[in-house]
Order: sequence, then structure tokens, then C-alpha cells
Amino acid sequence: MVSKLKSIKVPPSKEELNNRLEKVRSLMHRENLDYYISFDPVNIYYLTNFANNVHERPFILVIEKEGPPKMVVPLLEKSHVETRALCDLEFFSYYEFPAPKGENWFDQYQKLIKNNKKVGIESAMPMGIAEKTPGIKIIMDIIDEVRIIKTDYEVGRSVHACKVINKGHKEVLKMCRPGVLEFALYQKVTGLMTSKIIQDIPGANFMVCKTTAAVWPPSFSHDPHIIPKIFAEMENGGPHVSIVSAQVDGYGVEIERTFFLGEIPQEAKKPFEIMYQARDLAYNLLKPGENMGEIDKKVKKFIKNNGYGDYIIHRTGHGLGITGHEAPFLAEGYDRQLEPNMLISVEPGIYIPGLGGFRHSDTVLITEDGYIKLSKAPEKLDELIIEL
Amino acid sequence: MVSKLKSIKVPPSKEELNNRLEKVRSLMHRENLDYYISFDPVNIYYLTNFANNVHERPFILVIEKEGPPKMVVPLLEKSHVETRALCDLEFFSYYEFPAPKGENWFDQYQKLIKNNKKVGIESAMPMGIAEKTPGIKIIMDIIDEVRIIKTDYEVGRSVHACKVINKGHKEVLKMCRPGVLEFALYQKVTGLMTSKIIQDIPGANFMVCKTTAAVWPPSFSHDPHIIPKIFAEMENGGPHVSIVSAQVDGYGVEIERTFFLGEIPQEAKKPFEIMYQARDLAYNLLKPGENMGEIDKKVKKFIKNNGYGDYIIHRTGHGLGITGHEAPFLAEGYDRQLEPNMLISVEPGIYIPGLGGFRHSDTVLITEDGYIKLSKAPEKLDELIIEL
Repeated sequence: MVSKLKSIKVPPSKEELNNRLEKVRSLMHRENLDYYISFDPVNIYYLTNFANNVHERPFILVIEKEGPPKMVVPLLEKSHVETRALCDLEFFSYYEFPAPKGENWFDQYQKLIKNNKKVGIESAMPMGIAEKTPGIKIIMDIIDEVRIIKTDYEVGRSVHACKVINKGHKEVLKMCRPGVLEFALYQKVTGLMTSKIIQDIPGANFMVCKTTAAVWPPSFSHDPHIIPKIFAEMENGGPHVSIVSAQVDGYGVEIERTFFLGEIPQEAKKPFEIMYQARDLAYNLLKPGENMGEIDKKVKKFIKNNGYGDYIIHRTGHGLGITGHEAPFLAEGYDRQLEPNMLISVEPGIYIPGLGGFRHSDTVLITEDGYIKLSKAPEKLDELIIEL
Repeated sequence: MVSKLKSIKVPPSKEELNNRLEKVRSLMHRENLDYYISFDPVNIYYLTNFANNVHERPFILVIEKEGPPKMVVPLLEKSHVETRALCDLEFFSYYEFPAPKGENWFDQYQKLIKNNKKVGIESAMPMGIAEKTPGIKIIMDIIDEVRIIKTDYEVGRSVHACKVINKGHKEVLKMCRPGVLEFALYQKVTGLMTSKIIQDIPGANFMVCKTTAAVWPPSFSHDPHIIPKIFAEMENGGPHVSIVSAQVDGYGVEIERTFFLGEIPQEAKKPFEIMYQARDLAYNLLKPGENMGEIDKKVKKFIKNNGYGDYIIHRTGHGLGITGHEAPFLAEGYDRQLEPNMLISVEPGIYIPGLGGFRHSDTVLITEDGYIKLSKAPEKLDELIIEL
């Protein structure tokens, strides 16, 4: 199965982008929408291949039942969009933000939507854009919904992105020793991953490239979302928890490991083992048809039954794709079945103040009959006690 | 005057943050609001010193007429907020996103706002958050409004941030030669600026640190918002246009220059001169009481009268502060007077396809009687023709 997965490094074809647009239109049709409006730069990237950090000048995509999507863009950015967008687009450019009366972005925008029509908008749409949107507005995350099931092209991009983080994580384990500075790890490993991205994809769009590598040493690994200080030092023993993630020319992936330098404290053995078994439990449930909320519930129950219920502080996993964090979720209350070509993280965790954090995370593809881990690094305890 | 400006590298005091909050409250009072809700991570950083890249788990700040602001946070992030926030806050944490019924973010959030009260919300607030917000909602950018006039502390941070980009820009001019790769420039100069940030502020929060350095060589400098390819090469002659910008532990600044390598093409002399004079015209109008829209109008008129009206593609300037792009604007249609302690860019530009772009930009503080440029680099043509 693994051998079938191709690693893809080229930009999407026009056919790939048209295929995504048609999926959006089929949901528009189902919901009886006349228009769908996208403002979220992530969704616009998904449909067009144009990426941007939006400041105050709005970019808005207006999708009708047929014809190329219409894009409202600042004059200054039109050629930038033309260079990067790989689908057909019709442009409506405005001079500036702010602009004199009659020349504002909303003057262009409002002409594109007929009154009294049904207009789907994103839940991420800012109020200031929504209030200038004509028609009968309905909040409905149609593009986000389409993004949940990856195309084979997207899977290929994620396979490649995982090669980048796998290389980065290997280097983390190689160079992490007591006394090594967080900053040294960060610089070396992000530099290495960036070099690989450039070598593999010389035309990569740096608006959608990002690399991160950090290790939480045992003194604060119980606190996974604290941002390490750059002069923090790696320590003896563990649990250390690594995070290596990247957005590789638009595709976000992650890998994380719990590891020990030189030795493992006696009291860390059981929580590591329970984390490991909780993870096995989750993997055993990863196949199409399983309820995602139920998986998280079962994993939590297992951890509770083993005495660590007070040390669970997050869900079992989240989706990845053109971002590193998105729907779908392995989270209690998320009532949805797994489907082939979902891409998710699996990362049940146990966080014990005074002892540390225990979490492995991988980027995992759901297949017709189970799953494939796209990220790779040692997983077992004996491979993760690093000799000094 | 310049000698009076202190360079500040320390985090804001509690008094500074309370002072910002009281300004927000005084606008709430004027507008008769019972609550003001902030979701924008930039505004939350402004009031609390806590910065984050928000994913799907919401962080929401609820400001009442008195008492410490209330913050709805994911459980996982509570200690992260506690570590970074430097003001008093009352926490309301929720377990996860998504979550089982009754344990969602909005269950916590909705308890904090009484029905039938007047609730101010940001125009940037996503629809999905707004629809879960109780009360009578009024879109009103109060925190953004307060941010327009910098406190003396903020000015001091921007003074320091400009030292970082000034150093970076000096290196750009030093190393930029025909054949040098964009990527080499980027790596060297961003590395240099990052090192200075770390040396100056060892406790810098890397969530709000970012450095950029790029040069648009003459073959595409007419297109200022295209993203250069990483293997693009610097060329003979010019106009080359540099961009060096940084967010230094939360404070965003920029400097840009038009320069030439070895020689200046004859046809580039006039547009450089007109850009330079347009800039002088703008600077001569920079004092409290001048209308910001009118300044842009006059600058554009001057450029038009000199035959380059077709080559204007953006406004004269924008505000900077805890971001690199924000209100206020030197833009036609922006009807507001300059005031002391505004921080703006001044950057009229002329962009001629086939010849190139002409633009200098500086980060400029408005003072009681005029202005001070915080960014510094050569400005005159003869200083900007670099000998090879």
C-alpha cells in the first residue's frame, strides 16, 4: 500500500483546481445557493493556488453557479495574483484601501452580487466584509467541507511534505543533547528543512512555506502550548517532547516524539506506556466508518482507567492539509465518520506537572481499509532513550 | 528632538497596559457600550501582551465597564496566556474544540454577556464568533482606534525596531551586486537582524518576531507586490527596490530604497527625481492638523502633473505599530487629521513597466511640530548609485 503513494512536488494542474471548484459547486447546488463568497486566504489558495498574507486591502472570491470565479483585488496585487493563480479568474480590481467615494473595494464587490439571491459565506468571514455583502446571507463552510477529503494530488503533496519533516526530525534526535540550546536546534533543523524545500521545489512559493523545530525539555514538557524560550537548554533524562512541523509549498504536516536523553526516570515509564497504548488503541480504530468523536472518547476513557484522567488536556487529533490545523477532528462531540483520504494527526497526550509530557504525533492518511503513517521516526521506548 | 527619543527593549509595564485599557473604556463610555469584545489576536496582544497564532480554538477577550478583562481560552493554552499576559485577567477556560455538548467555548463565552446589553465588536470578528455573541451587536473598531495614537512606550519600541532594520538595510546595500541571489540576500540579512533581536532582547517572544529582506531588481521592480523568486539574481543598473521590514518583539517597521548598481540608465533619472520630489512634498505636509487624504491627493496630483499619473498604483503611506500595516492611512478618501504620535510610512511610488519601480519608504513619527524619521538609510540619488 505504502509503495503506491506518490510524492508530488509540482503545482496543481488546472484540472485539479477545476475539480475542486466543481465539488464546491455541487455543495452550492445541494444547498440551493446562487453565490458562494470566499474571503479566507486559505480557501482562496485552495481554489486558485494564489496565496497571500492579507492586510487591510481585501481580496474576495465570488463563485457563481457557472463561469470562472470572479476576484475582487487591489490594483497593486493584480499581477501578483495573475502570476500565481493557476485557474481561470475574472478580475475586478479597485484602486486602494481606503479610496475616494465610488472607488472602494465594496463598489466593485457589490456590483457582482444580485439582490435577493442566496449567498453562502464562510464562518471566518469578517463582520466588516459580511455587512457589505448583498443578498440573503447564509453561513456555511462549503470550501472547508470540500477540503476535508483530500484529492490524490493533495495526498502526494503531503507525502512529499512529510519527507521534509522526517529529515528534520532525524536531525533533532541526532543533535539533541543535555545543554544544547533551543535556538541551536531551531536554527539547524529549520535551515536543513528549508534547504530541502528549495532543492526539491526551486519555484516554491515562500508565502506558504514555513518550518518549525523545537523540543520541550522535561522541566516544561507538561505544558505543550507554552512557547519555549530561545535560550532554554536541553536537560538530562526526560520526557523531552519534540515538535517538527512544516508547511511545504502550501502543505502542512507534523511529527512529534517523546524521548529521553541518557536515561528514563522510573516514574516516567508508566505514563509513556499508557500514552503508547492509548495511541495503539486509536490506530486500531482508524478505518472508514468509525466515528471520530467516539475514537477520542475511547482513548480518553482508556487513559482515565489507567489513572491519568486528570492529565489529559487535549483531543486525540486534528486534520491537516493546506494548513497544519483544520477539520476534521478526533474529538469528543465531533460526530462524523472517518473516510478515505482524510489526513489527520494522531496524538493522545498525558501531561503531568513536575514530571513532564508524553505525546507522539504523526501525520496519518486514512485509506480504504485502514491508514498509512506518512511521517516516520522511532516510536518505541527503547529506540527513544538516546545514548549520550 | 531626535535625541529625546528613547529606544525601549523591555516588555510593557502593567501601568502601560492599564492605560491602554482605560482608553478603550473611555471610547466604550462615549459610545454607551456595556461590553467590548476582542477576537483579533493583534488587538488582544495590544491589551494583554499575549500573542498567538490562533487556529480553530477561539481566544476571546470580554471587556466590561470595570474590573479585569475576562478571557475565554482553551484549557491547553491557559498557562501560555498566564506566562505572557502582563495585565490582570480573569480566565474562563473550555476543554477543547470541538467539545461535547455543554463544554464548548461558546458555553463559557455566552455566560459572560447579559442579554439586551450593547456589545461592541470588531469589524474583523468572524461571522462564526459573532453569531454566538449575545446582546445588541454594534461593529465598532475601538481598540484599532486607540492604537492609532502611539504611547511614548510604543514609540520607544518602534525606535528600537528601526535600529534593527537600519542595520539590515545597511547590509543589503553592502552585499547587493549583479548576480547575487535573492535567497543569499534574504538569508544573510534576516539572519543578521534576528541575531540583533536576540542579543538586544533575550526574552523576545518569537510569536511576534519576523524579519524580511528582499530586493526587486529592475526586471520586475515595476511590480512591487509580486513575490520575488528565491533564485532571482540582482542585475546591472537599476532601479532596484529594497524592502527591509521586521516585527521586533511585537513592533513592526519598514525601510525601502530605490538604488542602482554601477550606473543609472538615462531614462531612470527623471522618474527618480519626481519620486524624490513627491516625497519631499509629502514630508513638507507632515504635521499635526494636516488632512491625511489631502496629502495623498496632492502627492498624486504632483506626480500626474509631471507626466507619471499612469504609473501610480498605491497610496502615499500607511500606519505601523504592533503590525507593519494598519490605520491610519495617507490615502485619498481617508478624511482624518495627522496627530502627534502617529507612526506612518511615507512612500509615494512610480512604477513603469519595462523600466522599473521608484519608491523610498521610511517609518516616520508625527511630532508636535512635524515629524522624525525613525528609519535611516541614504536617500539621495548620488548616494544610491553603488560603485561596483
